Amino acid sequence: MNKTKIGLLGFGKTGKAVATVILQNKEFCLEWVLRKSNLLDHRSVPEFLGVESDEPGLIYSLASTTIVELLDEHPVDIIIDFSSSTGIYTYGQIAGERGIKIIAAISHYSENEVEVLKNLSIKTTVFWSPNITLGVNYLLFAAKFLKKIAPWVDIEIIEEHFKGKDGISGTALKIAEALDLDKTNINSLRAGGIVGKHEVVFGFPYQTVRLIHESISREAFGNGVLFVAQNLLNKKEGLYNFEDILLPYFTP
Amino acid sequence: MNKTKIGLLGFGKTGKAVATVILQNKEFCLEWVLRKSNLLDHRSVPEFLGVESDEPGLIYSLASTTIVELLDEHPVDIIIDFSSSTGIYTYGQIAGERGIKIIAAISHYSENEVEVLKNLSIKTTVFWSPNITLGVNYLLFAAKFLKKIAPWVDIEIIEEHFKGKDGISGTALKIAEALDLDKTNINSLRAGGIVGKHEVVFGFPYQTVRLIHESISREAFGNGVLFVAQNLLNKKEGLYNFEDILLPYFTP
Amino acid sequence: MNKTKIGLLGFGKTGKAVATVILQNKEFCLEWVLRKSNLLDHRSVPEFLGVESDEPGLIYSLASTTIVELLDEHPVDIIIDFSSSTGIYTYGQIAGERGIKIIAAISHYSENEVEVLKNLSIKTTVFWSPNITLGVNYLLFAAKFLKKIAPWVDIEIIEEHFKGKDGISGTALKIAEALDLDKTNINSLRAGGIVGKHEVVFGFPYQTVRLIHESISREAFGNGVLFVAQNLLNKKEGLYNFEDILLPYFTP
Amino acid sequence: MNKTKIGLLGFGKTGKAVATVILQNKEFCLEWVLRKSNLLDHRSVPEFLGVESDEPGLIYSLASTTIVELLDEHPVDIIIDFSSSTGIYTYGQIAGERGIKIIAAISHYSENEVEVLKNLSIKTTVFWSPNITLGVNYLLFAAKFLKKIAPWVDIEIIEEHFKGKDGISGTALKIAEALDLDKTNINSLRAGGIVGKHEVVFGFPYQTVRLIHESISREAFGNGVLFVAQNLLNKKEGLYNFEDILLPYFTP
Repeated sequence: MNKTKIGLLGFGKTGKAVATVILQNKEFCLEWVLRKSNLLDHRSVPEFLGVESDEPGLIYSLASTTIVELLDEHPVDIIIDFSSSTGIYTYGQIAGERGIKIIAAISHYSENEVEVLKNLSIKTTVFWSPNITLGVNYLLFAAKFLKKIAPWVDIEIIEEHFKGKDGISGTALKIAEALDLDKTNINSLRAGGIVGKHEVVFGFPYQTVRLIHESISREAFGNGVLFVAQNLLNKKEGLYNFEDILLPYFTP
Repeated sequence: MNKTKIGLLGFGKTGKAVATVILQNKEFCLEWVLRKSNLLDHRSVPEFLGVESDEPGLIYSLASTTIVELLDEHPVDIIIDFSSSTGIYTYGQIAGERGIKIIAAISHYSENEVEVLKNLSIKTTVFWSPNITLGVNYLLFAAKFLKKIAPWVDIEIIEEHFKGKDGISGTALKIAEALDLDKTNINSLRAGGIVGKHEVVFGFPYQTVRLIHESISREAFGNGVLFVAQNLLNKKEGLYNFEDILLPYFTP
Repeated sequence: MNKTKIGLLGFGKTGKAVATVILQNKEFCLEWVLRKSNLLDHRSVPEFLGVESDEPGLIYSLASTTIVELLDEHPVDIIIDFSSSTGIYTYGQIAGERGIKIIAAISHYSENEVEVLKNLSIKTTVFWSPNITLGVNYLLFAAKFLKKIAPWVDIEIIEEHFKGKDGISGTALKIAEALDLDKTNINSLRAGGIVGKHEVVFGFPYQTVRLIHESISREAFGNGVLFVAQNLLNKKEGLYNFEDILLPYFTP
Repeated sequence: MNKTKIGLLGFGKTGKAVATVILQNKEFCLEWVLRKSNLLDHRSVPEFLGVESDEPGLIYSLASTTIVELLDEHPVDIIIDFSSSTGIYTYGQIAGERGIKIIAAISHYSENEVEVLKNLSIKTTVFWSPNITLGVNYLLFAAKFLKKIAPWVDIEIIEEHFKGKDGISGTALKIAEALDLDKTNINSLRAGGIVGKHEVVFGFPYQTVRLIHESISREAFGNGVLFVAQNLLNKKEGLYNFEDILLPYFTP
């Protein structure tokens, strides 16, 4: 079996964790990492991360390589973007032309960039999700479903993160929005080194249901990305989100 | 609006809790309670339970009344059965003949009785569920879905009940069966007066998801029954379980 | 062994639950219940509550009996007060004179009434606690101890109660006060029929500790009262709180 | 203020995490790390771990340095031992002679080595704990205390760790022993990448208390060691365990 070839944009803390997970997976091959900075240029990703792997993955910098050169020499099936909201301007057009699938794990896009995604989705398969862990997206899906069954139930959200994390977590806000709650239903705790916990409490008159997601480490993003990648393999052109990926699992 | 008329079989602890919930609901009317014992014969249910209600609900005993006489005088739309596995022999035939819907909240049926249910379901709408709380059935559904998305995930079940409860909880066994787990994955705790807690732990490499159901009191069965009753109103003849009731909520 | 004789003031929901627990305990005997209302006057407490017991406990009303008459006829060792902040004016003086121990489970006392308690504590053993469950008081004690060990740790409180409970729970406020936290560290959730849950989260840089108390029912107050009663048996005159009762257990 | 000087034995995963925490603390100075292997010999610890620090900490190997030479050149106040049960034979005698305090974070010692510790404790301050996190030791202490208050309460332990961890966790066994429970009261779950969670459930008739410790990462051992180190500073010769360190915090 040929491995699906992946090019990765972004090599911050999350990008590194995602690269680690890709290198350890046998269905996918990390062809390259592309980043703005020219730090670590041409270093081997597996070597740098201390992961045993015979995948080619070198680190390239936009300071010394163009995306076209890179894709000519090292073509990929999927581009995974953990860079920033403007990363799409680097690779979007050529990905569209060459039918390379796009997985954008970007927290916020401006309207303009959402427009770019939509246009690209006519030519290739485009996926976008602000939070790309499997657990959080499942939680969102399962919570919406319970709300649909019992629209009158009382719902509260608890989110816990490390001291110093500013503002309400984006994931908690997204859950609240999906459940028609407002910010007063979100209880934000900040303490010590808590990595990230989201709990949705459904209070019925004589019973409670709790859905809880706890992050252990950033590598969870890597598993989420590969889950999406596997499910995009036979998807046509179009713009997909995580719900689109989960729904087919429901056909009884 | 005409209230849907309910006849209730069984008046043990759970039957009483269910009756309380029915009396407090405005869409349903408790016409009568039928029990084997002739204790409390012809007492008023709302008065006995201390619930304010102008619903007629009297208690009848099989020692002094037949089901036919009862239904002739006080016809109902739905019979709810919290009695025992043999209750079906009391009301099944006439419910089938008169098209009265049946909700059987019976833990275990023998093969023979399941056969009776199937035959009845040709003539009327028949529902059977061993555990009829909304929360537990949702949990079961949501857990199966996550297992479908991530069949390789590690799953463990924790169930907690009051000291003295014998054996593994039936609900935990049902969850385990639905998730292809065996008994070694069920962790049973018995301590003090815990009413009932079921937790399904999904262990991913870098994150965990927990689904937790906690019972507060037996009245939860009443809410579950009414949820089922509402969803059976426009269902045709046939044999239904809780999953059949939940699935339609998924149509996106 | 002679049972310790108890007189109980107050017969609301909590008073009834407390009476049930006392009746079931073999070391204590419920001599009487005294209440303002003349409802249920001279009814038997065990009969009314449906508890099997051969303890004398009748219900008396202040409308037809005085405390002096009652104590003359049915002397007790301890008076337990679940009535209201002014109950102390009914029985305080005579309890002091006759050396009857007092357990006051009253949420709030005015300064004046605290003064009365102090004066009484010269003559007899007086105990006062606004929340008299063993679990909550243990939680308070254990949380203060962890804060003492690690004064720099981040602490957050989560309290969950049924929808409709107004304001922050008094217990949460007391915990916050004991830990030098302010109200912003208390996260109050209101949902469905949750009886009462208090969680104290200690966030360390690389670990968390959680102390959780969950109420199942009001009878917990009864067990708390009897725990206090047992521990007051050989205590001299003085004013005690729950911490005074717990501390002796620490002597290594 | 002069920093307290620390020498560290052991540089496996836990040793590295502990070194990281010591380097970041301002009251203590990491003078050196001593290990068996001659890998990384004479490398700078802060540099190797990527921690900014001007502390001298170099890595020395027993293959090329003796403990006497090391202590002559780089004297320390405390030796922290995360190596193995036989590490004590390397540094014990000279630590005793020079009055260097010893903190041994070793899971198991043979009787012989416990004898060595006892003899050393005549000459210097010796501390030994198989688990040296603050949270777990607090949990143990707090749980024993609740058991003392309510010896009749039902207690169950839940411990969760990553798939593949063999056997019941040593910490869970220690908790069980301290509470007079047997192995049947320990519920061991293994799933995904759970770092480590210990929960003690106290089931009362009408309430529950839960004490929960969750590990986020190995650095927790570093904080535990420094807590012990701070509390040993003014302790005389003798053999101490974690309970000895915690008890003084109780004097009201």
